[in-house]
Amino acid sequence: MYNVAVVGATGLVGREMVSILESRNFPVKSLKLLATSRSQGTIVQFKGQDIVVEEATPNSFEGIQIALFSAGEKGSKELAPFAVKAGAVVIDNSNAFRMEPDVPLVVPEVNEEKLREHKGIIANPNCSTIQMVVALAPLHRRFKIKRIVVSTYQSVSGTGREAVEELWEETKNILEGKPITPKVYPHQIAFNLLPHIDIFYPNGFSKEEMKMVNETRKILDDQSIKICATTVRVPVFRAHSESVNIETELPITPEEVREILSKAPGVVVVDKPEEAVYPMPIMAEGKDEVFVGRIRKDESIENGIVMWIVSDNIRKGAALNAVQIAESLIKLGLI
Amino acid sequence: MYNVAVVGATGLVGREMVSILESRNFPVKSLKLLATSRSQGTIVQFKGQDIVVEEATPNSFEGIQIALFSAGEKGSKELAPFAVKAGAVVIDNSNAFRMEPDVPLVVPEVNEEKLREHKGIIANPNCSTIQMVVALAPLHRRFKIKRIVVSTYQSVSGTGREAVEELWEETKNILEGKPITPKVYPHQIAFNLLPHIDIFYPNGFSKEEMKMVNETRKILDDQSIKICATTVRVPVFRAHSESVNIETELPITPEEVREILSKAPGVVVVDKPEEAVYPMPIMAEGKDEVFVGRIRKDESIENGIVMWIVSDNIRKGAALNAVQIAESLIKLGLI
Repeated sequence: MYNVAVVGATGLVGREMVSILESRNFPVKSLKLLATSRSQGTIVQFKGQDIVVEEATPNSFEGIQIALFSAGEKGSKELAPFAVKAGAVVIDNSNAFRMEPDVPLVVPEVNEEKLREHKGIIANPNCSTIQMVVALAPLHRRFKIKRIVVSTYQSVSGTGREAVEELWEETKNILEGKPITPKVYPHQIAFNLLPHIDIFYPNGFSKEEMKMVNETRKILDDQSIKICATTVRVPVFRAHSESVNIETELPITPEEVREILSKAPGVVVVDKPEEAVYPMPIMAEGKDEVFVGRIRKDESIENGIVMWIVSDNIRKGAALNAVQIAESLIKLGLI
Repeated sequence: MYNVAVVGATGLVGREMVSILESRNFPVKSLKLLATSRSQGTIVQFKGQDIVVEEATPNSFEGIQIALFSAGEKGSKELAPFAVKAGAVVIDNSNAFRMEPDVPLVVPEVNEEKLREHKGIIANPNCSTIQMVVALAPLHRRFKIKRIVVSTYQSVSGTGREAVEELWEETKNILEGKPITPKVYPHQIAFNLLPHIDIFYPNGFSKEEMKMVNETRKILDDQSIKICATTVRVPVFRAHSESVNIETELPITPEEVREILSKAPGVVVVDKPEEAVYPMPIMAEGKDEVFVGRIRKDESIENGIVMWIVSDNIRKGAALNAVQIAESLIKLGLI
């Protein structure tokens, strides 16, 4: 049994972490919930008990063995070192440490063994990266992926609770013929699309797009994979979807992909389009798996496959993956 | 001045055709509005006058010189031959004749000259194809496109008026906590995504996806271009968006693309992402142009560009392109 802390416990991901610790019966001895002073005093339920959220400070981590961070890049940079110093293993959901060479970037189904190299901090990858690598890793092992072209359809929950409220409010106002005033996003998101997630770099790609490039290479442990991503926010509350084209070294068929993915950990193949059966956000919401469908031969290259990948960005894309990392640490005797 | 008929005059596209004939001051001598018997008697305004919609029959086309069809594949197959026989030039918005070798498939900005080969029927391409080729044709001429990978984000207006109502009703019911019952689509479209447009073929691709492949090759008059499309319905009322990766024979830079497209007919470059300026459905709605942004170098191949293309599917994607074809026929003295 472990003393666990959740940092950012009142956010969408933090709350989901608490709920997943409970539903998976994670061996929690004590649970400490931390957040900014603004959320101090909030009550969160865990196994039928009220837990009062405390303000996260450098002194919050005494006795903590596992600290699940979902407090943004700034929060992680400020507080994670103190958690490590206090003896905790930090599993960090932010972008703060992902590309650090000595920080493992882990999706348990893909590269659990990397956990053995951790030095106190383990990074949880970006949501859109996680669901893609869960589906692509088994194919990379077998056929060697040379190139990935991906376009995403990302839900507002990836931005946080305020964005979920903004989509709801804007939609309501539009239906009632009232004016809208975007606050979280630079433009209306209801009934609209924004090809804009996070900041933009001088090369014209967004930070979200470059995360997909760099994190995928690190997780698949192959810097030779060529990747081009376009990330788009869509008026969907929950679950991210991805249209993914891969080019492989070895010949590849849709039948082989279906067979491999149907046995792959964490993947569910949902692929009977002629019966209108394919992955959709409303079906992935609240589920743990990565759903893959629309698997077909990309006839525009010699060895190519195109597919449609959907998963709950708050669960497998964030909170669940973090808890699974903690479970792997226990299983491997690393904690 | 011409005797014009609009077949399918009460549909989303038909009504837009009437409105565009008026706003562009098309030389209309007389306007006949035709539809199925169900819509017979409907009143549609044209230049301040009430026009009563008549039932479309084989005998409806006497004296008609230009017949704009937007009555679905079945309607076109049944009635277009009678219109041609009566001496009209048919501009058909359906899929009925697009791939017929002796039917020109025309986007005036791209291949207007093909109109000279017409034998009575001219096909208006599919909405998602039109906006893509308007942006890609100038690049193909200069750099020779070898391969296109496209993922679409298509609005419900592409399905028709009932789908627009379905998105509206479902959204309203969800906000009010009421149950929903999809009728037009096989699943909920509000706050959801359907990787499903039209029927599916045994190769796993949808008819909409194969239209993008086959029509693009025909319009660009180049069967060697390799194309892979994934078409997705999104909860947006109007305007289709596309994430497009191209690979070219010749070296290509984002600067060259921006320069060429900023001078290309029918294209507007909207590309300052760092200021949150990029094409979006709500900005393209009701506009005539094809908006292109997020233009960047696709680093995953030697000569590659990735971009984001948005246009009003009911205007440039359908009604406007049909009226522009009629204008080109007049300009070229073909009618």
